[in-house]
Amino acid sequence: MSYNEKYMRKAIALSIRNIDNGGGPFGALVVKDGEIIAVGTNRVTKQHDPTAHAEVVAIRKAARKLGTFDLSGCEIYTSCEPCPMCLGAIYWARLDCLYYGNTKEDAKQIGFDDSFIYDEIKMASELRKIKTVQCLSDEAITAFEKWQAKEDKTAY
Amino acid sequence: MSYNEKYMRKAIALSIRNIDNGGGPFGALVVKDGEIIAVGTNRVTKQHDPTAHAEVVAIRKAARKLGTFDLSGCEIYTSCEPCPMCLGAIYWARLDCLYYGNTKEDAKQIGFDDSFIYDEIKMASELRKIKTVQCLSDEAITAFEKWQAKEDKTAY
Repeated sequence: MSYNEKYMRKAIALSIRNIDNGGGPFGALVVKDGEIIAVGTNRVTKQHDPTAHAEVVAIRKAARKLGTFDLSGCEIYTSCEPCPMCLGAIYWARLDCLYYGNTKEDAKQIGFDDSFIYDEIKMASELRKIKTVQCLSDEAITAFEKWQAKEDKTAY
Repeated sequence: MSYNEKYMRKAIALSIRNIDNGGGPFGALVVKDGEIIAVGTNRVTKQHDPTAHAEVVAIRKAARKLGTFDLSGCEIYTSCEPCPMCLGAIYWARLDCLYYGNTKEDAKQIGFDDSFIYDEIKMASELRKIKTVQCLSDEAITAFEKWQAKEDKTAY
Protein backbone atom coordinates (compact mmCIF):
# COMPACT_ATOMS: atom_id res chain seq x y z
CA MET A 1 0.00 0.00 0.00
CA SER A 2 1.09 3.52 -0.68
CA TYR A 3 -0.28 7.02 -0.75
CA ASN A 4 -2.66 7.81 -3.59
CA GLU A 5 -3.53 11.43 -4.23
CA LYS A 6 -6.97 10.60 -5.61
CA TYR A 7 -8.17 9.41 -2.19
CA MET A 8 -6.95 12.59 -0.53
CA ARG A 9 -8.77 14.65 -3.15
CA LYS A 10 -11.91 12.61 -2.46
CA ALA A 11 -11.66 13.28 1.29
CA ILE A 12 -11.26 17.00 0.57
CA ALA A 13 -14.23 16.96 -1.81
CA LEU A 14 -16.33 15.29 0.94
CA SER A 15 -15.27 17.99 3.42
CA ILE A 16 -16.34 20.77 1.06
CA ARG A 17 -19.62 19.15 0.05
CA ASN A 18 -20.49 18.49 3.71
CA ILE A 19 -20.71 22.21 4.41
CA ASP A 20 -23.60 22.47 1.95
CA ASN A 21 -25.16 19.42 3.62
CA GLY A 22 -25.30 21.20 6.98
CA GLY A 23 -22.26 19.57 8.55
CA GLY A 24 -18.79 20.68 9.58
CA PRO A 25 -15.96 21.01 6.99
CA PHE A 26 -14.53 17.52 7.44
CA GLY A 27 -14.41 14.36 5.32
CA ALA A 28 -12.62 11.02 5.59
CA LEU A 29 -12.44 7.62 3.96
CA VAL A 30 -11.05 4.17 4.68
CA VAL A 31 -9.20 2.37 1.88
CA LYS A 32 -8.12 -1.26 1.64
CA ASP A 33 -6.22 -2.83 -1.27
CA GLY A 34 -7.03 0.09 -3.55
CA GLU A 35 -10.75 0.06 -2.78
CA ILE A 36 -12.74 2.62 -0.81
CA ILE A 37 -14.43 0.64 1.99
CA ALA A 38 -16.34 3.53 3.58
CA VAL A 39 -16.57 7.32 3.63
CA GLY A 40 -17.57 9.63 6.46
CA THR A 41 -18.39 13.27 7.03
CA ASN A 42 -18.94 15.28 10.17
CA ARG A 43 -22.57 14.88 11.30
CA VAL A 44 -22.29 16.22 14.89
CA THR A 45 -24.97 18.88 14.64
CA LYS A 46 -27.24 17.12 12.15
CA GLN A 47 -27.38 13.81 14.03
CA HIS A 48 -27.06 15.17 17.58
CA ASP A 49 -23.99 13.01 18.04
CA PRO A 50 -20.83 14.62 19.47
CA THR A 51 -18.82 11.57 18.35
CA ALA A 52 -19.91 11.76 14.69
CA HIS A 53 -16.63 13.15 13.35
CA ALA A 54 -15.73 12.19 9.78
CA GLU A 55 -13.06 9.67 10.86
CA VAL A 56 -15.26 7.97 13.48
CA VAL A 57 -18.14 7.75 10.99
CA ALA A 58 -15.87 6.24 8.30
CA ILE A 59 -14.28 3.78 10.75
CA ARG A 60 -17.63 2.59 12.12
CA LYS A 61 -18.99 2.07 8.63
CA ALA A 62 -15.84 0.29 7.43
CA ALA A 63 -15.80 -2.05 10.45
CA ARG A 64 -19.48 -2.88 10.01
CA LYS A 65 -18.94 -3.55 6.31
CA LEU A 66 -15.93 -5.80 6.86
CA GLY A 67 -17.53 -7.52 9.86
CA THR A 68 -14.61 -6.91 12.21
CA PHE A 69 -13.47 -4.29 14.70
CA ASP A 70 -9.91 -4.81 13.42
CA LEU A 71 -9.10 -2.68 10.37
CA SER A 72 -5.50 -3.84 10.03
CA GLY A 73 -4.51 -3.57 6.38
CA CYS A 74 -6.63 -0.44 5.90
CA GLU A 75 -5.56 3.20 5.57
CA ILE A 76 -7.46 6.35 6.44
CA TYR A 77 -7.47 9.57 4.45
CA THR A 78 -8.90 12.58 6.25
CA SER A 79 -9.26 16.20 5.22
CA CYS A 80 -7.98 17.36 8.65
CA GLU A 81 -5.53 16.02 11.22
CA PRO A 82 -7.60 13.84 13.60
CA CYS A 83 -8.62 15.18 16.99
CA PRO A 84 -7.67 13.01 20.02
CA MET A 85 -11.01 11.19 19.89
CA CYS A 86 -10.49 10.27 16.25
CA LEU A 87 -6.82 9.46 16.70
CA GLY A 88 -7.79 7.15 19.55
CA ALA A 89 -10.37 5.50 17.29
CA ILE A 90 -7.69 5.07 14.60
CA TYR A 91 -5.45 3.24 17.08
CA TRP A 92 -8.27 1.04 18.39
CA ALA A 93 -9.19 0.16 14.80
CA ARG A 94 -5.52 -0.67 14.12
CA LEU A 95 -5.38 1.23 10.84
CA ASP A 96 -2.02 1.04 9.07
CA CYS A 97 -1.59 4.60 7.82
CA LEU A 98 -3.03 8.03 8.28
CA TYR A 99 -3.00 10.75 5.62
CA TYR A 100 -4.39 14.20 6.44
CA GLY A 101 -4.71 17.66 4.88
CA ASN A 102 -5.36 20.51 7.33
CA THR A 103 -3.68 20.64 10.74
CA LYS A 104 -5.21 20.94 14.20
CA GLU A 105 -3.87 24.50 14.26
CA ASP A 106 -5.82 25.23 11.06
CA ALA A 107 -8.91 23.80 12.79
CA LYS A 108 -8.30 26.04 15.80
CA GLN A 109 -8.16 29.07 13.51
CA ILE A 110 -11.75 28.44 12.42
CA GLY A 111 -13.04 27.79 15.95
CA PHE A 112 -12.70 24.04 16.56
CA ASP A 113 -11.38 22.66 19.86
CA ASP A 114 -8.97 20.00 18.55
CA SER A 115 -5.85 21.78 19.71
CA PHE A 116 -7.36 22.56 23.14
CA ILE A 117 -8.29 18.90 23.68
CA TYR A 118 -4.77 17.79 22.72
CA ASP A 119 -3.44 20.13 25.41
CA GLU A 120 -5.90 18.82 27.99
CA ILE A 121 -5.17 15.13 27.32
CA LYS A 122 -1.46 15.67 27.91
CA MET A 123 -2.13 17.05 31.40
CA ALA A 124 -2.49 15.14 34.65
CA SER A 125 -6.22 14.67 35.24
CA GLU A 126 -6.29 16.94 38.30
CA LEU A 127 -5.06 19.86 36.16
CA ARG A 128 -7.65 19.49 33.40
CA LYS A 129 -10.59 21.84 32.89
CA ILE A 130 -13.06 18.99 33.40
CA LYS A 131 -13.41 17.93 37.04
CA THR A 132 -12.12 14.34 37.28
CA VAL A 133 -12.32 12.13 40.37
CA GLN A 134 -11.42 8.50 40.98
CA CYS A 135 -13.86 6.64 43.24
CA LEU A 136 -14.65 3.11 44.46
CA SER A 137 -11.50 1.69 42.88
CA ASP A 138 -11.59 -1.27 45.27
CA GLU A 139 -15.02 -2.24 43.92
CA ALA A 140 -14.34 -1.39 40.26
CA ILE A 141 -11.35 -3.74 40.09
CA THR A 142 -13.61 -6.78 40.57
CA ALA A 143 -14.69 -6.47 36.90
CA PHE A 144 -11.07 -6.67 35.75
CA GLU A 145 -10.43 -9.68 38.02
CA LYS A 146 -13.46 -11.41 36.55
CA TRP A 147 -12.25 -10.58 32.99
CA GLN A 148 -8.83 -12.04 33.70
CA ALA A 149 -10.31 -15.22 35.14
CA LYS A 150 -12.65 -15.76 32.16
CA GLU A 151 -11.30 -18.39 29.78
CA ASP A 152 -13.50 -18.11 26.69
CA LYS A 153 -13.30 -14.33 26.24
CA THR A 154 -12.77 -12.49 22.94
CA ALA A 155 -9.68 -10.38 23.59
CA TYR A 156 -9.02 -7.23 21.58
CA MET B 1 -24.59 18.48 41.10
CA SER B 2 -22.32 16.35 43.17
CA TYR B 3 -20.87 12.88 43.29
CA ASN B 4 -23.32 10.11 44.16
CA GLU B 5 -21.92 6.70 44.99
CA LYS B 6 -24.99 4.87 43.69
CA TYR B 7 -24.19 5.90 40.09
CA MET B 8 -20.64 4.68 40.42
CA ARG B 9 -21.89 1.35 41.78
CA LYS B 10 -24.27 1.13 38.81
CA ALA B 11 -21.40 1.74 36.34
CA ILE B 12 -19.39 -0.99 38.06
CA ALA B 13 -22.37 -3.38 37.98
CA LEU B 14 -22.72 -2.72 34.23
CA SER B 15 -19.02 -3.47 33.71
CA ILE B 16 -19.30 -6.81 35.52
CA ARG B 17 -22.53 -7.86 33.82
CA ASN B 18 -21.11 -6.96 30.39
CA ILE B 19 -18.52 -9.73 30.67
CA ASP B 20 -21.31 -12.31 30.80
CA ASN B 21 -22.90 -10.55 27.82
CA GLY B 22 -19.82 -11.13 25.69
CA GLY B 23 -18.33 -7.64 25.97
CA GLY B 24 -15.30 -6.09 27.65
CA PRO B 25 -15.31 -5.27 31.40
CA PHE B 26 -16.45 -1.66 31.06
CA GLY B 27 -19.62 0.26 31.92
CA ALA B 28 -20.61 3.93 31.98
CA LEU B 29 -23.61 6.17 32.45
CA VAL B 30 -24.59 9.79 31.88
CA VAL B 31 -26.49 11.56 34.65
CA LYS B 32 -28.33 14.89 34.58
CA ASP B 33 -30.14 16.49 37.53
CA GLY B 34 -30.18 13.24 39.48
CA GLU B 35 -31.56 11.19 36.60
CA ILE B 36 -29.76 8.55 34.54
CA ILE B 37 -30.08 9.70 30.91
CA ALA B 38 -28.28 6.77 29.28
CA VAL B 39 -26.05 3.80 30.06
CA GLY B 40 -23.39 2.16 27.91
CA THR B 41 -21.22 -0.93 27.91
CA ASN B 42 -18.32 -1.98 25.74
CA ARG B 43 -19.66 -3.62 22.55
CA VAL B 44 -16.51 -3.54 20.38
CA THR B 45 -16.34 -7.24 19.59
CA LYS B 46 -20.08 -7.94 19.61
CA GLN B 47 -21.01 -5.08 17.27
CA HIS B 48 -17.83 -5.00 15.17
CA ASP B 49 -17.34 -1.36 16.18
CA PRO B 50 -13.92 -0.28 17.47
CA THR B 51 -15.48 2.95 18.78
CA ALA B 52 -18.15 1.21 20.89
CA HIS B 53 -16.51 1.84 24.24
CA ALA B 54 -18.84 2.20 27.22
CA GLU B 55 -18.41 6.00 27.44
CA VAL B 56 -18.91 6.60 23.70
CA VAL B 57 -22.01 4.38 23.72
CA ALA B 58 -23.47 6.21 26.75
CA ILE B 59 -22.67 9.66 25.28
CA ARG B 60 -24.19 8.84 21.89
CA LYS B 61 -27.36 7.51 23.51
CA ALA B 62 -27.64 10.48 25.90
CA ALA B 63 -27.17 13.01 23.09
CA ARG B 64 -29.77 11.27 20.91
CA LYS B 65 -32.21 11.16 23.84
CA LEU B 66 -31.76 14.84 24.73
CA GLY B 67 -31.73 15.89 21.06
CA THR B 68 -28.48 17.82 21.28
CA PHE B 69 -24.77 17.21 20.80
CA ASP B 70 -24.11 19.46 23.81
CA LEU B 71 -24.29 17.58 27.12
CA SER B 72 -23.44 20.55 29.31
CA GLY B 73 -25.03 20.03 32.70
CA CYS B 74 -24.46 16.28 32.54
CA GLU B 75 -21.91 14.11 34.37
CA ILE B 76 -20.39 10.80 33.34
CA TYR B 77 -19.67 7.88 35.64
CA THR B 78 -17.42 5.20 34.16
CA SER B 79 -16.02 2.01 35.63
CA CYS B 80 -12.56 2.79 34.17
CA GLU B 81 -10.58 5.93 33.40
CA PRO B 82 -11.46 6.91 29.81
CA CYS B 83 -9.04 6.13 26.99
CA PRO B 84 -8.03 9.10 24.76
CA MET B 85 -10.89 8.39 22.34
CA CYS B 86 -13.44 8.47 25.15
CA LEU B 87 -11.83 11.44 26.88
CA GLY B 88 -11.96 13.31 23.57
CA ALA B 89 -15.65 12.41 23.24
CA ILE B 90 -16.24 13.69 26.79
CA TYR B 91 -14.72 17.06 25.87
CA TRP B 92 -16.64 17.33 22.60
CA ALA B 93 -19.86 16.51 24.49
CA ARG B 94 -18.98 19.21 27.05
CA LEU B 95 -19.77 17.04 30.05
CA ASP B 96 -19.33 18.78 33.40
CA CYS B 97 -17.70 16.06 35.50
CA LEU B 98 -16.03 12.71 35.12
CA TYR B 99 -16.00 10.01 37.81
CA TYR B 100 -14.08 6.79 37.23
CA GLY B 101 -13.09 3.58 39.06
CA ASN B 102 -10.16 1.67 37.56
CA THR B 103 -7.13 3.46 36.09
CA LYS B 104 -5.56 3.17 32.64
CA GLU B 105 -2.70 1.31 34.33
CA ASP B 106 -5.20 -1.22 35.69
CA ALA B 107 -6.52 -1.60 32.12
CA LYS B 108 -3.00 -2.14 30.83
CA GLN B 109 -2.51 -4.93 33.40
CA ILE B 110 -5.34 -6.92 31.82
CA GLY B 111 -4.19 -6.32 28.25
CA PHE B 112 -5.93 -3.15 27.05
CA ASP B 113 -4.07 -0.47 25.06
CA ASP B 114 -5.32 2.66 26.83
CA SER B 115 -1.97 3.53 28.35
CA PHE B 116 -0.13 2.89 25.05
CA ILE B 117 -2.49 5.20 23.14
CA TYR B 118 -2.00 7.95 25.76
CA ASP B 119 1.74 7.67 25.17
CA GLU B 120 1.31 7.80 21.39
CA ILE B 121 -0.97 10.86 21.40
CA LYS B 122 1.56 12.86 23.39
CA MET B 123 4.23 12.29 20.72
CA ALA B 124 4.89 14.33 17.60
CA SER B 125 3.11 12.57 14.75
CA GLU B 126 6.36 11.59 12.99
CA LEU B 127 7.43 9.59 16.07
CA ARG B 128 4.21 7.62 16.43
CA LYS B 129 3.85 3.92 15.58
CA ILE B 130 1.19 4.68 12.97
CA LYS B 131 2.63 6.18 9.78
CA THR B 132 1.23 9.74 9.50
CA VAL B 133 1.69 12.06 6.52
CA GLN B 134 0.29 15.48 5.71
CA CYS B 135 -0.65 15.98 2.04
CA LEU B 136 -2.44 18.44 -0.25
CA SER B 137 -2.73 21.02 2.53
CA ASP B 138 -3.10 23.80 -0.05
CA GLU B 139 -6.23 22.09 -1.41
CA ALA B 140 -7.62 20.94 1.95
CA ILE B 141 -7.69 24.48 3.33
CA THR B 142 -10.37 25.51 0.83
CA ALA B 143 -12.98 23.69 2.96
CA PHE B 144 -12.02 25.75 6.00
CA GLU B 145 -12.14 28.96 3.96
CA LYS B 146 -15.61 28.05 2.74
CA TRP B 147 -16.69 27.26 6.34
CA GLN B 148 -15.47 30.63 7.56
CA ALA B 149 -17.26 32.46 4.77
CA LYS B 150 -20.56 30.67 5.41
CA GLU B 151 -22.98 32.87 7.35
CA ASP B 152 -25.83 30.52 8.36
CA LYS B 153 -23.68 27.70 9.77
CA THR B 154 -24.34 25.82 13.02
CA ALA B 155 -21.10 26.28 14.97
CA TYR B 156 -20.09 23.81 17.69
